[in-house]
Amino acid sequence: MIIVMKNGATEEEVSEVMSKIEEMGYKAHLITGVEKKIIGAVGDEREKAQLESLISMPGVENTIPILKPYKLSSLQAREEKTVIKVGDVEIGGKHMFMVAGPCSVESEEQIFQAAAAVKEGGAHVLRGGAFKPRTSPYSFQGMGEGGLKLLKKVSEALNIPVQTEIMNPEDIDLVAEYVDILQVGARNTQNFPLLKKLGTVGKPVFLKRGLSTTIEELLMCAEYILSEGNQQVILCERGIRTFETATRNTLDISSIPVLQQETHLPVVVDPCHATGNWKYVIPLCKAAVAAGADGLMVEVHPNPQEALSDGPQSLKPENFHKLMAELEPYIKLAGRTL
Amino acid sequence: MIIVMKNGATEEEVSEVMSKIEEMGYKAHLITGVEKKIIGAVGDEREKAQLESLISMPGVENTIPILKPYKLSSLQAREEKTVIKVGDVEIGGKHMFMVAGPCSVESEEQIFQAAAAVKEGGAHVLRGGAFKPRTSPYSFQGMGEGGLKLLKKVSEALNIPVQTEIMNPEDIDLVAEYVDILQVGARNTQNFPLLKKLGTVGKPVFLKRGLSTTIEELLMCAEYILSEGNQQVILCERGIRTFETATRNTLDISSIPVLQQETHLPVVVDPCHATGNWKYVIPLCKAAVAAGADGLMVEVHPNPQEALSDGPQSLKPENFHKLMAELEPYIKLAGRTL
Amino acid sequence: MIIVMKNGATEEEVSEVMSKIEEMGYKAHLITGVEKKIIGAVGDEREKAQLESLISMPGVENTIPILKPYKLSSLQAREEKTVIKVGDVEIGGKHMFMVAGPCSVESEEQIFQAAAAVKEGGAHVLRGGAFKPRTSPYSFQGMGEGGLKLLKKVSEALNIPVQTEIMNPEDIDLVAEYVDILQVGARNTQNFPLLKKLGTVGKPVFLKRGLSTTIEELLMCAEYILSEGNQQVILCERGIRTFETATRNTLDISSIPVLQQETHLPVVVDPCHATGNWKYVIPLCKAAVAAGADGLMVEVHPNPQEALSDGPQSLKPENFHKLMAELEPYIKLAGRTL
Amino acid sequence: MIIVMKNGATEEEVSEVMSKIEEMGYKAHLITGVEKKIIGAVGDEREKAQLESLISMPGVENTIPILKPYKLSSLQAREEKTVIKVGDVEIGGKHMFMVAGPCSVESEEQIFQAAAAVKEGGAHVLRGGAFKPRTSPYSFQGMGEGGLKLLKKVSEALNIPVQTEIMNPEDIDLVAEYVDILQVGARNTQNFPLLKKLGTVGKPVFLKRGLSTTIEELLMCAEYILSEGNQQVILCERGIRTFETATRNTLDISSIPVLQQETHLPVVVDPCHATGNWKYVIPLCKAAVAAGADGLMVEVHPNPQEALSDGPQSLKPENFHKLMAELEPYIKLAGRTL
Repeated sequence: MIIVMKNGATEEEVSEVMSKIEEMGYKAHLITGVEKKIIGAVGDEREKAQLESLISMPGVENTIPILKPYKLSSLQAREEKTVIKVGDVEIGGKHMFMVAGPCSVESEEQIFQAAAAVKEGGAHVLRGGAFKPRTSPYSFQGMGEGGLKLLKKVSEALNIPVQTEIMNPEDIDLVAEYVDILQVGARNTQNFPLLKKLGTVGKPVFLKRGLSTTIEELLMCAEYILSEGNQQVILCERGIRTFETATRNTLDISSIPVLQQETHLPVVVDPCHATGNWKYVIPLCKAAVAAGADGLMVEVHPNPQEALSDGPQSLKPENFHKLMAELEPYIKLAGRTL
Repeated sequence: MIIVMKNGATEEEVSEVMSKIEEMGYKAHLITGVEKKIIGAVGDEREKAQLESLISMPGVENTIPILKPYKLSSLQAREEKTVIKVGDVEIGGKHMFMVAGPCSVESEEQIFQAAAAVKEGGAHVLRGGAFKPRTSPYSFQGMGEGGLKLLKKVSEALNIPVQTEIMNPEDIDLVAEYVDILQVGARNTQNFPLLKKLGTVGKPVFLKRGLSTTIEELLMCAEYILSEGNQQVILCERGIRTFETATRNTLDISSIPVLQQETHLPVVVDPCHATGNWKYVIPLCKAAVAAGADGLMVEVHPNPQEALSDGPQSLKPENFHKLMAELEPYIKLAGRTL
Repeated sequence: MIIVMKNGATEEEVSEVMSKIEEMGYKAHLITGVEKKIIGAVGDEREKAQLESLISMPGVENTIPILKPYKLSSLQAREEKTVIKVGDVEIGGKHMFMVAGPCSVESEEQIFQAAAAVKEGGAHVLRGGAFKPRTSPYSFQGMGEGGLKLLKKVSEALNIPVQTEIMNPEDIDLVAEYVDILQVGARNTQNFPLLKKLGTVGKPVFLKRGLSTTIEELLMCAEYILSEGNQQVILCERGIRTFETATRNTLDISSIPVLQQETHLPVVVDPCHATGNWKYVIPLCKAAVAAGADGLMVEVHPNPQEALSDGPQSLKPENFHKLMAELEPYIKLAGRTL
Repeated sequence: MIIVMKNGATEEEVSEVMSKIEEMGYKAHLITGVEKKIIGAVGDEREKAQLESLISMPGVENTIPILKPYKLSSLQAREEKTVIKVGDVEIGGKHMFMVAGPCSVESEEQIFQAAAAVKEGGAHVLRGGAFKPRTSPYSFQGMGEGGLKLLKKVSEALNIPVQTEIMNPEDIDLVAEYVDILQVGARNTQNFPLLKKLGTVGKPVFLKRGLSTTIEELLMCAEYILSEGNQQVILCERGIRTFETATRNTLDISSIPVLQQETHLPVVVDPCHATGNWKYVIPLCKAAVAAGADGLMVEVHPNPQEALSDGPQSLKPENFHKLMAELEPYIKLAGRTL
């Protein structure tokens, strides 16, 4: 941590800050500039909140952290990239991981049709929501446990692993019985009690970035799960909130190379939620693969115009097949296999 | 809902969309413009997700909602502003509601000192966190139930109601035993299971706006609580996330008159989290009162430079007293009392 | 400037960066932390772009500037606040500076009506656009020199100074003949050739913040004008672009105390452009005064529903008079006079 | 345009709005909903500012535009995509257009080295700034006409077309003598006098999107140029300003498919300015090609650590050659040639 002193800071103020730093267990190191004095506080910054409180001392202008706050999720923490196995698929390795399915489980017929379509198209995992986070309390809230049972049923019938969203820590045990991958949605990225409890579960967690979560904060959310013991975390970029309204959110494509440089965890991209419009999904899937993503998640519904949620951003089965066909050479070019 | 057809949409496409609208229980109403046809779908739009799915039909360019999605939280839903009573104070009426206290309960000595200081300064409610949402799992996570007990103890000793943050639906019953107001933090604004359960509690909920929550979404979050039966909801503007870095977040002062026009619920402003810097708190408190806020929340710590969290944005007791003294004429001018 | 080395940076890499720093004329100062080495480059950072290029050297992770880049606009540059005189009014002193008038000059009748209304209400300066920056080339582009002549005419007839927007460096001499204050709009905040030429003019410049200009960048834009010799710069906060759509832009009220702390230049607030809605203008004017603004700019049109531009955000004359009446006690409370 | 009336709007208010609409030359069409009345104003919305002013009439809640405001830049305006020829290269057709070169022309040696490197790597056009828009007046402002002369010299010597930025309408004639493509930077996207004058020039304009310019606004900026007669406009996505700080700006990759759907103009991507970090340039170039871009612009400097501007985001010549080699199969896959 660097502590920047104000231009007119007195000798006494500087030495009091330095004493305080030493008292906190850090080594203080003074640099006298032409205009300002700055003090380096050398030590482990992870409990940086206390160092930041130094700004309340007389003469202090600012504090600037130097070290990255994530440890377990940083690339330096491991020799190699994390590979997570779900059924036959390896996530984070040479395979391109494909999750597909409807926003919500709506009925047995709908989820079986969707599952057949995505499996035929080559998806490795079926997604489908049973507990839905909806902006409005008057919107369809999901089928609840009934939806979980249908996911389990279709999973066994078609031999495809399933993934569903979890919102309430209380539901984790129940959900973990039925599905293979537990998804944390964008509104719960920083739901710390949920993350902590997911850290104690023996199943992979699919952690979506929040609408206003920075990349650094996303890695700190992963850190919550990792530090509780669960090492199976998949990160998902799904668009951030900006001023642009031509798309529902703004896909932060740069987050892919940034994350690939910073972390050993697999990085998946969800262009459906990022854009809110199925027409942009195919080019953005190609872009995500080209930028280095480890996987993709797309919404596929047998009949989007009747969907109870996310119809506008869902692919029809034939468009999902078209996507997979067009994507294949990009996957090869990226040095991966399906 | 307005359905905008593409420029070249055929007669058949138009009539299929109109049939679909009628099938969904709405009345379809066609307007033929010079370039485009648009169709008004007349009826209750609250389950608008289905109407939005019409965008997947051939010939449809866009869908535009007309009605506001909130009902119970809208100003039209009541004859007058909601007034919530906590102890002797009325929130949302002619009083200016003042919540103050440290970010976290850190020790008995600290919370008693803080409580004495804020009570002496004129605050109506003491705040203090026992369960802390921290970006880092390595930061102080709060004292948990021990903190709740200290809050209860200081509340009884000094006769001041207390408010604390709740993150996990499981903790609601426990927390409700100890405190007077249950706070939902900015990272949980759209934590729907939490909101639903808070809707069944008989205590006021202090609902903070999320970093990227729109005003309309905030009102829909209140709607979750109201629609479950709890009518005691206090809204809190605490800054949104923008590109500007001179302050930690950007206080959306305009949200005050917008909310006062749209809803009957009380509107409180938290300038400490909005700016992250105690130096800006006094002018922004004045601004919030002048803009029509029903209350203010400020962080006060007996010794900010030793705070375990939020030190940089906490007022010292003497600055809180200065704030209250300078604020008084603004409160009067706004036609309110302390 | 602080240069942060990568975790595994070699001795050689560190010493090469240090040599390069010294070669550039700075003193290099090494701090060895537990994880990383950092190097302080001591000297004048104003030509910081070159120091930032060090990031291309092997072993360098990041560069962090320490000094604020503005000099002439910083509060430290002067003993006291800048006070600018226009006619009888002092801007930046104890007076509250009020600019009012229509978005555009539309006709002689309209500008005379508007001028009479704002003068009667107590405005010190009449605003009115002759060259209009419009999003669409098909929208009314302003009356050009004809509009300038009308401004001059009404200024002389009613004895009120006038302010108008300038977009093209070529027009500066022409415009300066007709008006008292030259306004730079939000789309030209970083139009550097315009700023440089305005730095050579002997009239005050009213510099609006851009939609995505940071406070630091705004001060650097003022620096462009000041460094060319013109010391009469008025800063104007007019809302920044965010995700919120309830208002057209988001008024950054915190910028007022931040700017008052950082610069000696007067700070004016324009709540009409910030919100795009006249209904929010009165509470936000009060808030701006309470937060410490040196002045306000509001749009007033004799007949907003017929305005050729900015009708929705313009006050009718009677509402402007209501604003001024309600504002008066806030101005007094802020220790100012009209 | 749709005019939404307030819930309690009277018959009289509705009929006055309808009369006003007809008076303005539109046809008014009333739809009576369950809660609200809405009025469709049928006609050409391009002069929509006046219709928007209706919001000032009693009983009006809101106005919602239906038609897209751009005409000449819309895809419907032409039968096919625009193809612009510069030297031997076709921009907007089957070729992938590559612009490369240093941020600034710094010396004859530097620009000749850079030009040789980019030409060898396969770039079609050399970029280099002579007039530099710098945040600080104390930073290197470019070599001015001297830089233009060097661009011309190197262009003739190496037989490569050149592109440079223009900021001041006064400089257009001068710059057009020396270079082949005139670039408008992100700070001047909405510099309307500049755009209008560029609309009268017979050379292609390379129009960069502003930091907070929406896609719709960008197309309206192109419309300024097109409507003055110059049909040679190249659009450039270069990142927008968001809350994320891991990259300097956020590359809006979705803008590529959105623009390809909306306009016939070529779309080029600049990942260097978007990220501010050369390490992310190669994956983002691939992503842009995969998403459907018509071209790329990258910064290449013979010696980035000594660059006077934009060093951190500039590729070394060997990295540019690596980029081109790795990009080639992506270009083929996208059905294009170099």
